[in-house]
Amino acid sequence: MTSRAIRILGIDPGLRRTGWGVIDIDGNRLIYVGCGSVESREAAPLAERLLAIHEGLARVLGDFKPLEAAVEQTFVNRDGASTLKLGQARGVAMLAPAMFGISVAEYAPNQVKKTVVGAGHADKNQIRVMLGVLLPKADPKTPDAADALAIAITHAHHRQSAILKLKVVG
Amino acid sequence: MTSRAIRILGIDPGLRRTGWGVIDIDGNRLIYVGCGSVESREAAPLAERLLAIHEGLARVLGDFKPLEAAVEQTFVNRDGASTLKLGQARGVAMLAPAMFGISVAEYAPNQVKKTVVGAGHADKNQIRVMLGVLLPKADPKTPDAADALAIAITHAHHRQSAILKLKVVG
Repeated sequence: MTSRAIRILGIDPGLRRTGWGVIDIDGNRLIYVGCGSVESREAAPLAERLLAIHEGLARVLGDFKPLEAAVEQTFVNRDGASTLKLGQARGVAMLAPAMFGISVAEYAPNQVKKTVVGAGHADKNQIRVMLGVLLPKADPKTPDAADALAIAITHAHHRQSAILKLKVVG
Repeated sequence: MTSRAIRILGIDPGLRRTGWGVIDIDGNRLIYVGCGSVESREAAPLAERLLAIHEGLARVLGDFKPLEAAVEQTFVNRDGASTLKLGQARGVAMLAPAMFGISVAEYAPNQVKKTVVGAGHADKNQIRVMLGVLLPKADPKTPDAADALAIAITHAHHRQSAILKLKVVG
């Protein structure tokens, strides 16, 4: 990472598996840094699963030292039990960067698709293909890790306006 | 707290206000220790609000050093946006004790009512009256703090079976 580069962490939260992706922005260039996913044991008590997500993301934050973070806004038009599970994972996922003093931007799913593919209704496969173009060195092993990289790219494109908005609101 | 006493933290999670209540069990006696609520600023970014909940509960955990914790299971039959908000707060609220190495038991709302009042369909007011009987020294300033004490009492009554269950499952 050069001194001008801004390092971004994208997070795709999920109780079973939370994806993470780290990229650097250097001027107009995007540079792949790393990606992966944090898994939690389904048979474990809920608090233990949340702790696993927290510890995994805290490790990523400590290892890669991003300056900014982003997560996807969540659909709530599924069943209540799924929304609650996802909400719990998402709360813990957003807390981790905040504990490291890093702001966490939020992007709607169609904003992520539009930024990465150019269309708000792109499918997963189109995102995967565009990831290969935008970050040729990235080789995400899970869909969650790929989604996390897509979120990081979205933040790279929108961060200036997001930061201005944060300043006005906060 | 005598050496035999078990200190319990009850938590009633909410994004705007998270209630907490601490009691000691000494043999068959329940002893009120403290209660209150952690508030987050509604205008703040979500990650900042989650951090406020985390820091408030971490302070309570550090100050009172409970040995066990409990939260209420959440209704999911409300609208998706509310469920998501509550889920995010709940995830962060359950993470805090886990980070202190404390197990977090979960109880259904009607189990809390049944334990405190004796009927699964008791209203808030009946719970408040019974709290006055069971913990005469408690003076919760908010409904969330009162609910958190009710959850702590519920855990005091059910903890033996909950612990056995945890051992079998975990």
